[in-house]
Amino acid sequence: MLNKVLAYLDENKEKSVERLFSLLRFQSISTDPAYKNACRETADWLVEDLKSMGFEASRRDTSGHPMVVGHHPGPSDDCLHVLFYGHYDVQPVDPLNLWENEPFEPSIQERNGEKVICARGASDDKGQLMTFLEACRAFKNETGQLPVKVTILFEGEEESGSPSLVPFLEANVDELKADCALVCDTSMWDADTPSISVGLRGMLGEEVIITAANCDLHSGYFGGAAANPIHILAKILAGLHDENGKVTLPGFYDGVEKTPPQILQSWDELGCDAETFLGPVGLSISSGEKGYSILEQVWARPTAEVNGISGGYEGEGFKTVIASKASAKVSFRLVHQQDPEKIRQGFRDYVRRCIPADCTVTFKEHAASPAIQLPYDSSFVMAAKDALSQEWDKPALLIAMGGSIPIVGNFRSIFNMETILAGFALADDRIHSPNEKYNLRSFYKGQRSWARILVTLANRKINDRDSYSSK
Amino acid sequence: MLNKVLAYLDENKEKSVERLFSLLRFQSISTDPAYKNACRETADWLVEDLKSMGFEASRRDTSGHPMVVGHHPGPSDDCLHVLFYGHYDVQPVDPLNLWENEPFEPSIQERNGEKVICARGASDDKGQLMTFLEACRAFKNETGQLPVKVTILFEGEEESGSPSLVPFLEANVDELKADCALVCDTSMWDADTPSISVGLRGMLGEEVIITAANCDLHSGYFGGAAANPIHILAKILAGLHDENGKVTLPGFYDGVEKTPPQILQSWDELGCDAETFLGPVGLSISSGEKGYSILEQVWARPTAEVNGISGGYEGEGFKTVIASKASAKVSFRLVHQQDPEKIRQGFRDYVRRCIPADCTVTFKEHAASPAIQLPYDSSFVMAAKDALSQEWDKPALLIAMGGSIPIVGNFRSIFNMETILAGFALADDRIHSPNEKYNLRSFYKGQRSWARILVTLANRKINDRDSYSSK
Repeated sequence: MLNKVLAYLDENKEKSVERLFSLLRFQSISTDPAYKNACRETADWLVEDLKSMGFEASRRDTSGHPMVVGHHPGPSDDCLHVLFYGHYDVQPVDPLNLWENEPFEPSIQERNGEKVICARGASDDKGQLMTFLEACRAFKNETGQLPVKVTILFEGEEESGSPSLVPFLEANVDELKADCALVCDTSMWDADTPSISVGLRGMLGEEVIITAANCDLHSGYFGGAAANPIHILAKILAGLHDENGKVTLPGFYDGVEKTPPQILQSWDELGCDAETFLGPVGLSISSGEKGYSILEQVWARPTAEVNGISGGYEGEGFKTVIASKASAKVSFRLVHQQDPEKIRQGFRDYVRRCIPADCTVTFKEHAASPAIQLPYDSSFVMAAKDALSQEWDKPALLIAMGGSIPIVGNFRSIFNMETILAGFALADDRIHSPNEKYNLRSFYKGQRSWARILVTLANRKINDRDSYSSK
Repeated sequence: MLNKVLAYLDENKEKSVERLFSLLRFQSISTDPAYKNACRETADWLVEDLKSMGFEASRRDTSGHPMVVGHHPGPSDDCLHVLFYGHYDVQPVDPLNLWENEPFEPSIQERNGEKVICARGASDDKGQLMTFLEACRAFKNETGQLPVKVTILFEGEEESGSPSLVPFLEANVDELKADCALVCDTSMWDADTPSISVGLRGMLGEEVIITAANCDLHSGYFGGAAANPIHILAKILAGLHDENGKVTLPGFYDGVEKTPPQILQSWDELGCDAETFLGPVGLSISSGEKGYSILEQVWARPTAEVNGISGGYEGEGFKTVIASKASAKVSFRLVHQQDPEKIRQGFRDYVRRCIPADCTVTFKEHAASPAIQLPYDSSFVMAAKDALSQEWDKPALLIAMGGSIPIVGNFRSIFNMETILAGFALADDRIHSPNEKYNLRSFYKGQRSWARILVTLANRKINDRDSYSSK
């Protein structure tokens, strides 16, 4: 059966690219209200695609962007039941002038000798979620059924803090709960080495807006006397790290655990240093916390990063102005038991202490999610690892990752359900950046990988199906 | 004669406002190439207005925006000859959403019980330069002549570093050189107290662009390892001042002189503290150099100010990105003998020392002009002081000012010519900001002030006409 399905996937590569292109043309930027309709249309397209392969599927409206839910029975009543999660929303596209192609007009290009699909969302997450749908389509067309029972959940708010997700999960536990969740929103270790992510950093986002004078001032008349909010902001941001790269907020490291020596050793054996890790993006020196390897810095240590800053005159030429306002977006990546809300308070307290008495500060709250650690050795993980190792002809690695996928925590806390994070993105996919791409090889072999994972999961006798409930 | 002229000005107030409105409708933003035609049309309008009152006037094209030059003979061959300078270009208008009216659709509004003209350039400098032209028009219409010989020079690049000015002055010394220059581009001490500025800070503008990775990065994957150019920039900017507000660049204070005790005393007698100086803009605490009075801070001490900062995601919502680039516009106000080019080098050296080895920095050079000190006691200054004191029924103050008007230095160095800086702007005019305004009272009494100044200058026997040449 598997061979027929893999052959079908190989024969239908071009059609699968056409379908992905259709999905990529939707401008589903969830953070910007201007694209609300585009998000709705994307959801409708996915509903139709699921229906076309026999899913019972529907768009489920929320107070934000809609969810897409689909159900397909398995070969028997007591077969394995998986919940596949992906997100159809994408990041904003600015700065637009840095794109070499139109972000919502997908095309195949050649980059560094590899054929790649260029478009916003090609890698994060439209291309990735379609790898799973194409695998389902192949089973359906070749065998008339799916090897396991499949529930689909596609979200349209992943890039904007998922405000509707938890209420939706809580309201639909019976409908959505499965034996395990599958998520395709992560990267491979490198272009040849598949990996499953078992550690995820959490995240806290904060926006700081400092107001000084009640209008922009002429820096000739007022310079040297009036408070400059950019100066205040620069001092605040510069003070977030000490000279060793440690975050200075009091209590920030509460709940951070040491990485076990055997894990550190397995990471060291990957032979990845700052030059190999940063080389693809044009850097060579770690700017992070001293005393930690580069992989520990990005996988197991918390961070504070300024994601955006704005103030005063930013146009062409020069304007001798002292701005009335300056603002920054700051995010913290969290690990282990760090408490996002405690860190938010600690950050705000620190900022408030830096504000002169005649100036004011306001905060905007963004995403807050704790870190997640998944088991290294469950049956599900082992099955997926075997399937990936076969497809890529190389042992799949169990790694941690620096990004945050909060839904993994929701699946555990609300559904008592473990998650397998298997994805085919690459470090140079430029997700969240201009010129995002997804390698054609990732797209094709991703489809084949899911076919193998579904078969392996179905065949393997899952003796410990419910054993994660108590973990 | 003077009374007839003043009466004419009082009777023709409304027509003078109409003319100013025509001038304000031109979008003469010199720093933005998109407004090149608008600048040219503004110059043409001024040429026509000068011709309408008997000036021999012409638009003089440069490689940037054109100059306007006009000549009008005086009552006799050996009469006093003044050169009046103003600028018809204006600052950019962003952020546009903060304007309560369209910046280029002038209107009369009431603010704090005062009638004011609202428009970009109302105060800086279109409204101010028109006070002088209206005075000339009144003389011409009432007496058929002007009381002194008048040469006009209007510039269109004052807000963008005046690249064409020095070459133009040098190429036209014989045509433009007069006995003294008059400039209307400064403020009154307060709404009732006229003033003449005799000290001007110089200025140096620099733009810094820091590049780290070769594209924007996902802060989850790369955060804690990859250099963040906003962090680097924040450290650089935060390090520009020490805890006492002193600028930290090595050699920055070379050439800065102590303010003479009698000058400090005269400033102290103005009774202006941080609350009175900053109150109108909603602040109350000096953020400047400790150990100096607020007036010394803005009139006699050098500064470093960040005028704009930009980097990463600045739109609505949140984007977990580590920017590839971050940039800032920084200006220094200079006093006494500080050397702008030496400070530029010192700044660049400091910035370069802060850049990690795998990141790069580029600089864009903006305005550089040294500070100016004018005499407190020349015949010209005394004549203007008397005239202003009469019009406003209050002794005019001789003050310093924090802004930079580089042309005053050019007039001295190229023409050996002293300048009288008399202006009618107010501290709350929001020049360079949204909702710029010019009080109607400033506009009307400014016209009358120039009429008095011209008559006083003409009547006073100028025995020491050339005595400033050697100063």
